[in-house]
Amino acid sequence: MAERITPRSEDYSRWYTDVVIQGKLADYAPVKGCMVIRPNGYAIWEQMQKVLDRMFKETGHVNAYFPLFIPESFMKKEAEHVEGFAPECAVVTHGGGEKLEEPLYVRPTSETIIWSMYKKWIMSYRDLPILINQWANVVRWEMRTRLFLRTTEFLWQEGHTAHATFEEAEEETRRILEIYRTFAEEYMAMPVIVGRKSEAEKFAGAVHTYSIEAMMQDGKALQAGTSHNLGQNFAKAFDVKFQDRQGNLNYVYATSWGVSTRLIGALIMTHGDDNGVIIPPRLAHIQMVIVPIWKESNRQEVLDFSEQVFQKLKPHFSVKLDDREQYKPGYKYAEWELMGVPLRIEIGPRDVASNQVTLVRRDNREKTPVSLDVLIERIQEMLETIQQALFQRALEFRKANTFRIDDYEEFKKVFEEKNIFAESHWCGSADCEEKIKEDTKATIRNIPFEQETEEGKCIYCGKPSQGRVVFAKAY
Amino acid sequence: MAERITPRSEDYSRWYTDVVIQGKLADYAPVKGCMVIRPNGYAIWEQMQKVLDRMFKETGHVNAYFPLFIPESFMKKEAEHVEGFAPECAVVTHGGGEKLEEPLYVRPTSETIIWSMYKKWIMSYRDLPILINQWANVVRWEMRTRLFLRTTEFLWQEGHTAHATFEEAEEETRRILEIYRTFAEEYMAMPVIVGRKSEAEKFAGAVHTYSIEAMMQDGKALQAGTSHNLGQNFAKAFDVKFQDRQGNLNYVYATSWGVSTRLIGALIMTHGDDNGVIIPPRLAHIQMVIVPIWKESNRQEVLDFSEQVFQKLKPHFSVKLDDREQYKPGYKYAEWELMGVPLRIEIGPRDVASNQVTLVRRDNREKTPVSLDVLIERIQEMLETIQQALFQRALEFRKANTFRIDDYEEFKKVFEEKNIFAESHWCGSADCEEKIKEDTKATIRNIPFEQETEEGKCIYCGKPSQGRVVFAKAY
Repeated sequence: MAERITPRSEDYSRWYTDVVIQGKLADYAPVKGCMVIRPNGYAIWEQMQKVLDRMFKETGHVNAYFPLFIPESFMKKEAEHVEGFAPECAVVTHGGGEKLEEPLYVRPTSETIIWSMYKKWIMSYRDLPILINQWANVVRWEMRTRLFLRTTEFLWQEGHTAHATFEEAEEETRRILEIYRTFAEEYMAMPVIVGRKSEAEKFAGAVHTYSIEAMMQDGKALQAGTSHNLGQNFAKAFDVKFQDRQGNLNYVYATSWGVSTRLIGALIMTHGDDNGVIIPPRLAHIQMVIVPIWKESNRQEVLDFSEQVFQKLKPHFSVKLDDREQYKPGYKYAEWELMGVPLRIEIGPRDVASNQVTLVRRDNREKTPVSLDVLIERIQEMLETIQQALFQRALEFRKANTFRIDDYEEFKKVFEEKNIFAESHWCGSADCEEKIKEDTKATIRNIPFEQETEEGKCIYCGKPSQGRVVFAKAY
Repeated sequence: MAERITPRSEDYSRWYTDVVIQGKLADYAPVKGCMVIRPNGYAIWEQMQKVLDRMFKETGHVNAYFPLFIPESFMKKEAEHVEGFAPECAVVTHGGGEKLEEPLYVRPTSETIIWSMYKKWIMSYRDLPILINQWANVVRWEMRTRLFLRTTEFLWQEGHTAHATFEEAEEETRRILEIYRTFAEEYMAMPVIVGRKSEAEKFAGAVHTYSIEAMMQDGKALQAGTSHNLGQNFAKAFDVKFQDRQGNLNYVYATSWGVSTRLIGALIMTHGDDNGVIIPPRLAHIQMVIVPIWKESNRQEVLDFSEQVFQKLKPHFSVKLDDREQYKPGYKYAEWELMGVPLRIEIGPRDVASNQVTLVRRDNREKTPVSLDVLIERIQEMLETIQQALFQRALEFRKANTFRIDDYEEFKKVFEEKNIFAESHWCGSADCEEKIKEDTKATIRNIPFEQETEEGKCIYCGKPSQGRVVFAKAY
């Protein structure tokens, strides 16, 4: 608390780290590339889990748990998959004091171990669909790490479903993508662009990968969730066939999809300000904090009134009463702002006299006196107002930093100067994509679903293009 | 479903495996010693997590997440700890395609990594207490594994707290033990013996270990939860000191405590019968299932009535309507019994005519017709009755299989013939404890808190003893 948070305008990257460390959201672990998620950060993850888990269950999914370790031979069964993941795996070579006959990979993702089980469980169309999700830790060896955004170990959920037809798998893939969009926009208050990944950027082993992409406050993109239609690739690798209604044997169709603790980083970089993080009300595990302001002469009456307000609000909201004696109100304001509590309730002697409290919004510090008679209704409205305001501010920021660019010289110049989203035409060639990345570090984030069909020319090679894609530098 | 469950009387161990596999609670994984927790089993774990997490939070604990990997040098800092755990660790030697400078142990428990962080976080008495819990996976290399009871990887919660005084740590240790007892007895309906572990059986690095111990249906003991007062052992190993109110530097006091997915095994072996598992109502994620019984002639009216009952119950209970067309009622009964759903609601044409349903208890198959007018109240009562009946049955079974034994020849003879709990005097010597184990395979489960002080003679050496301890063969 004593330390200063680097202002965003001075150094965005240091600002981010300051907010995470000083807000006690996470800390560096003494293991290379790993982090500790501290209680303040983990509480955000728990809220995210609660909402997502409910959405998954409402759409028929169930949770299960598969092993952390994957035999090396399993990783090698799907050619693209092993090429994509093996180089970044942690490998267990010894167990129980002895060298293992076959090395075990610590899961970087669980397709292979799960499909080896689906082979045991799926015989006929009656066994389909399987709609399983898993909340777990995964490990991907990282050289350059950032708290929440890129760490060797992280927490996530990974869905792995099995279906009788490609269409059904595609439908599931898109259903989950819509859940991710809803979660990002309606709970995290983070606008996202929904679309399909290019061939170069898709998941190792997928037929189609879809993603939601958000713009951070520095103009960079952050991939916030992905959903993959895996076709029959993993069923073929693990020989998983089912007998259909007509008695024919077919390979099973698969999907997989996930979001991770990286979302906490996304939340911080979407809404945070120079005072710390801002948690949208619908995700806040503490929605409001009451801070009494007293002098020695009116201490008891202010505290009594505050306690009364606390008891009134408790059945309706997640509320804290900060009556610590050893800290002054200003210190408390700063502490709760740092942690992102969306609403502060100040209660001073004048409020007591008028039977009112003063609401202070975390997002813009606007103060509103509210009579006790209408307090619950007004707080409900205000939480909703804050939720919407955060979304609108982020959406407007993205709009202001998104440009249609049709000239490659301009494209290069813009990306040299700043981070933005460029909507530009692309012919579909991996070659052009690669060249653009080399020139500018911008990659195709996705091919948005929502856009008018518009004929144009590839920004790089000038060949015909059917529509625009989103280019950006990405986290 | 098609396969037969081995009756308990024929082979208890095979019965257990049959119930787990056929009930789709878990399955063997293709990784040595590991299991897959299938959705039916994971749903039980989720219910357990929900209750325990609430109890932890109500007593001021918060959740966090620490890394999976522990540097080898950390493991070695606490002498007893490394001796106890290192031989059963999985070791990562390679990451990102390269050999690591220092091997990483996959956590068997997290004291060392957590206390390395507490060193960073604790300066003064103001930073205490720290009351952190973690839900995580851990790995202990096992040679002989059993689903849920003993697997190389398992899920658990591990609490790690830091305190200013030994007394406060002891208080915390006992508070958690009481939470474990409450959870076992009031939710799992599993009576437990609460007490202190002997020196030989305590946690590697603890001053005191307390446990709850339950009797399984085969008379063996199962350690269901442990709570450790770690004294200053880990604070000394990691040099964690705090400044007290007087300005003196002291080592911090620690506790740790945990329960694991092993509780699912305990639940099965406490209540299960030859038809499958029985889930106590307070832990059941499906509390009741409605099975309509129709002929072609009355199909629609039975289904309509069943739907009406389902809608009536839904706001009050976790209820399923099994209106699958392709299965006969008898098949459905068997399936839901296997999964342990505590209450079945049968609805046939005669029930429809009388505006009633027939409740069937899972634990004793007793049938009760109940009019729709009083259905909700009667179901509430019946769920409570089942909960209590399960506890009573288990308690009576334990009483019937617990004996006070004061003669060593008799002691040996009894343990040769059967599995029981023996309450016998013990002088306190690790030597006697070891000899008894060699002779009989029975170990001291714990030294119960609840017992009259009674002078006696050690069952092995005849030296004076102040009280009885519980001996049993254990899982």
